[in-house]
Amino acid sequence: MKLSIADIASLTNAKIVGDDPPKAGFITGIAKIEEAKEGELTFLYLPQYEKYFPSTKASAIFVRSDFKKTRKNITYLEVPDPNKAFFKIITTYFSPKFPLEGIDATAFVHPSASVGDKTAIGKNVVISAGCIIGKNVKIFHNTVLLENVDVGDDSIIFQNVSVREECKLGKRVIIHSGTVIGSDGFGYTMENGAYVKIPQVGNVILGDDVELGSNVSVDRAAIGSTIIKQGTKIDNLVQIAHNVVIGEHTAVSGQTGFSGSAKIGNYCVFGGQIGVAGHIEITDKVMIAAQSGVSKSVTKSGTYFGAPLKEIKEAFRQEGHIRNLEDYAKRIKELEKLVAKISEQLKNSPER
Amino acid sequence: MKLSIADIASLTNAKIVGDDPPKAGFITGIAKIEEAKEGELTFLYLPQYEKYFPSTKASAIFVRSDFKKTRKNITYLEVPDPNKAFFKIITTYFSPKFPLEGIDATAFVHPSASVGDKTAIGKNVVISAGCIIGKNVKIFHNTVLLENVDVGDDSIIFQNVSVREECKLGKRVIIHSGTVIGSDGFGYTMENGAYVKIPQVGNVILGDDVELGSNVSVDRAAIGSTIIKQGTKIDNLVQIAHNVVIGEHTAVSGQTGFSGSAKIGNYCVFGGQIGVAGHIEITDKVMIAAQSGVSKSVTKSGTYFGAPLKEIKEAFRQEGHIRNLEDYAKRIKELEKLVAKISEQLKNSPER
Amino acid sequence: MKLSIADIASLTNAKIVGDDPPKAGFITGIAKIEEAKEGELTFLYLPQYEKYFPSTKASAIFVRSDFKKTRKNITYLEVPDPNKAFFKIITTYFSPKFPLEGIDATAFVHPSASVGDKTAIGKNVVISAGCIIGKNVKIFHNTVLLENVDVGDDSIIFQNVSVREECKLGKRVIIHSGTVIGSDGFGYTMENGAYVKIPQVGNVILGDDVELGSNVSVDRAAIGSTIIKQGTKIDNLVQIAHNVVIGEHTAVSGQTGFSGSAKIGNYCVFGGQIGVAGHIEITDKVMIAAQSGVSKSVTKSGTYFGAPLKEIKEAFRQEGHIRNLEDYAKRIKELEKLVAKISEQLKNSPER
Repeated sequence: MKLSIADIASLTNAKIVGDDPPKAGFITGIAKIEEAKEGELTFLYLPQYEKYFPSTKASAIFVRSDFKKTRKNITYLEVPDPNKAFFKIITTYFSPKFPLEGIDATAFVHPSASVGDKTAIGKNVVISAGCIIGKNVKIFHNTVLLENVDVGDDSIIFQNVSVREECKLGKRVIIHSGTVIGSDGFGYTMENGAYVKIPQVGNVILGDDVELGSNVSVDRAAIGSTIIKQGTKIDNLVQIAHNVVIGEHTAVSGQTGFSGSAKIGNYCVFGGQIGVAGHIEITDKVMIAAQSGVSKSVTKSGTYFGAPLKEIKEAFRQEGHIRNLEDYAKRIKELEKLVAKISEQLKNSPER
Repeated sequence: MKLSIADIASLTNAKIVGDDPPKAGFITGIAKIEEAKEGELTFLYLPQYEKYFPSTKASAIFVRSDFKKTRKNITYLEVPDPNKAFFKIITTYFSPKFPLEGIDATAFVHPSASVGDKTAIGKNVVISAGCIIGKNVKIFHNTVLLENVDVGDDSIIFQNVSVREECKLGKRVIIHSGTVIGSDGFGYTMENGAYVKIPQVGNVILGDDVELGSNVSVDRAAIGSTIIKQGTKIDNLVQIAHNVVIGEHTAVSGQTGFSGSAKIGNYCVFGGQIGVAGHIEITDKVMIAAQSGVSKSVTKSGTYFGAPLKEIKEAFRQEGHIRNLEDYAKRIKELEKLVAKISEQLKNSPER
Repeated sequence: MKLSIADIASLTNAKIVGDDPPKAGFITGIAKIEEAKEGELTFLYLPQYEKYFPSTKASAIFVRSDFKKTRKNITYLEVPDPNKAFFKIITTYFSPKFPLEGIDATAFVHPSASVGDKTAIGKNVVISAGCIIGKNVKIFHNTVLLENVDVGDDSIIFQNVSVREECKLGKRVIIHSGTVIGSDGFGYTMENGAYVKIPQVGNVILGDDVELGSNVSVDRAAIGSTIIKQGTKIDNLVQIAHNVVIGEHTAVSGQTGFSGSAKIGNYCVFGGQIGVAGHIEITDKVMIAAQSGVSKSVTKSGTYFGAPLKEIKEAFRQEGHIRNLEDYAKRIKELEKLVAKISEQLKNSPER
């Protein structure tokens, strides 16, 4: 592979700086700064990676214009956002092309299901009765869709995905392997000393441009729908219980869990391993740091942390106090000694 | 769909109240209060949903007899427990019927395996040598059972489930997609600087009426059995390590994990994201709140919370103290000032 | 099954002690001490299991030489490490033999893929173009490997595993069911109010002797590789994000998660449900207790706990202070009373 530095600079509006350009003005690949080989293009974005700059073997590098150009044998490509510029190069030249085409002979498509143009269906896939699969969809091997599932145009479903009956997926949805959509919600009543299952008769609705990572569990609603709205991205191993509603353009990191009927706003960001209680509401533009526990509704946009959840400044202040506990304990002891001494003094004082 | 209000009231022993019954005395479906459309039946149970009552479009509603009937254009169905009444309607009229029948031609059933009457086996299912599958079982597409697995009568196993050799599932068991039963326990010895795997030669036993959510991992025992007893319900993404024993009628919420050889009693309830250490015992009727960490045995029934785990009242009291730390720190500082001032006074006092 | 006590003792260098050997000097099986039946061999290792010793029905038992032999009707096999001796017996006589052989007719192996000698491929397995599968590998039913995946000799991949394109697995690797290798990392840029996916063009590399539990998610790198090095063992439901590097001979317990680009050393041990932040480094020989939160790099070997993470002694000391908070609060109140009283006294004291 050969990409000209000139083309790269033109695509990213970069200013080429440096008197030692790559041989013949080409790069041969892309790599992280600490792994780049001669001829490759890299980028520098986070300060903690600057330590790799003196020794990187990369031949060209995206940097900010204020970056100290302490080396000569590398071509600098100055841009306002090296991360975005590098991403542009990846998207343009390196985006994966999945070679899945046509409907495999081993796939089962029920006669009552419909499949759009240019849609590819892999080996041993099961498309059950009443499914409506849009155009230009890719469904990889061994994935199973039960009855009446809709999948919108341009979606990708990887291998070994399970979608239960009646679930509806929007356009340009991406579902990674091992993910389960529409499993029964966790609902029982206790009768005569035994749990009796409450039938879960709702479904799951995923908006356009939703992406679910691998091994995610999204339960169907008890009644109505569990909903993940347009543009929301869910990382691996996330639990989404029945009747949860997650708004638009929200991002949820790995291993976070939402209990039943929690309602989450738009443009929220969740760190990993957060637990959200059932039947609470979180408003728009709420950021919550990893491992927090959210047991009450959050009605004000902002950044939060902790269990119980607090505004992040308050959480850090509290953490500081906890770190100081050893000191507080000493000071209490010291005060007790002083006060005892004073009391003793006063008791022994003749004029009292 | 048309259900008569009279039939619904009769089925649930409800008292019909209200002078504006649905058209012709029929409902056309069921829905949550905030989503119900005209003609539908809903219910009101949790106080936080009362805010939807003034605007719900539902035509009939289950309520408690003491509910304030502030609207006219809705039929009230008075019952002691609106949740249970609604559940009765769902169970009676809306329970899902899975249209899986017969043994699919693409399924593999080893000649030495036995399959009971009316059992349905989906596409690409693998039933290995020695398996004994009961009557009226449904095993959905692409699920794989290795050798000598038993599945009791009336069980349902959804698609893409993995059951390893020798595991035994009781009657009326439900296993959701992506769940793995009988994977190797996490056991090694360190020898000459490398982990050596301890063969995991036990199995998993699930009692009657056990339900496992999606993407659950239940490891086989090192020796003997990992056991989940009758009537116990496990939510999604739960980790159950080797040789764990969970008693009867216990409920475990999503993303909780049990380390090796933990023994859990009957009628326990676990919130989500709890961690339970290995080799400990939890007695019967213990409720543990979400995100707790259980590092020691719990020998007394009750409600617990925290990491380390405490009785819930104590946990809340401790949480209160942590919230007060800022105040405590101020008061210590104030005391120090006062005591310094007093000491100074005493020192300067002429008569000393 | 019949194993002679003499053979067992010889294999484990055990000293036979006790005047009541099993009938005819044979044992018929192995079991845990609390479950052993007459004729079986067991072992005693952890002190908390000694309570089962008086009542165990086992006929022979591995113990340390200093164990108090308070019973007569059992054969003692004295060894320095009863756990290892028992493990030796399991490995020698009870290791599971998976009866998978040959390439099943329903498996798909792309003509451009290569498969080594004695490798077994189960039903409905998909081996895509360019895959290189070594010798003596077992790939169980319904597992899917996309393009150009390598699997080293003597590896075992259980059923329903998903491996995405370009991922490379070493020799003697074991992958349990439901695990996903090479799903896309969680990477987006926000543009015009919507997330835009950053193509994840790297792969995953697993070293020799790596074992991954069930329902594990290992994301492919954004660029370069997500790497798990030789001999490292990962338990169930663990999240490994893009560009994470985990060193050699490290063990990670269930439900722990590593955020993007975290770098973990050799010979580390992670408890369960730990969260590790992105872009941090953890040096060699670091042990971290369950449920910790690691938000900063750890540059010194040792044992750590807590969120934020602390050396374990400090964490326990801090926990002690938190437990004492009720006491501290009382003592502050008491001091306030005393100081108020003293101040009052001093104020009223005539000579001032």
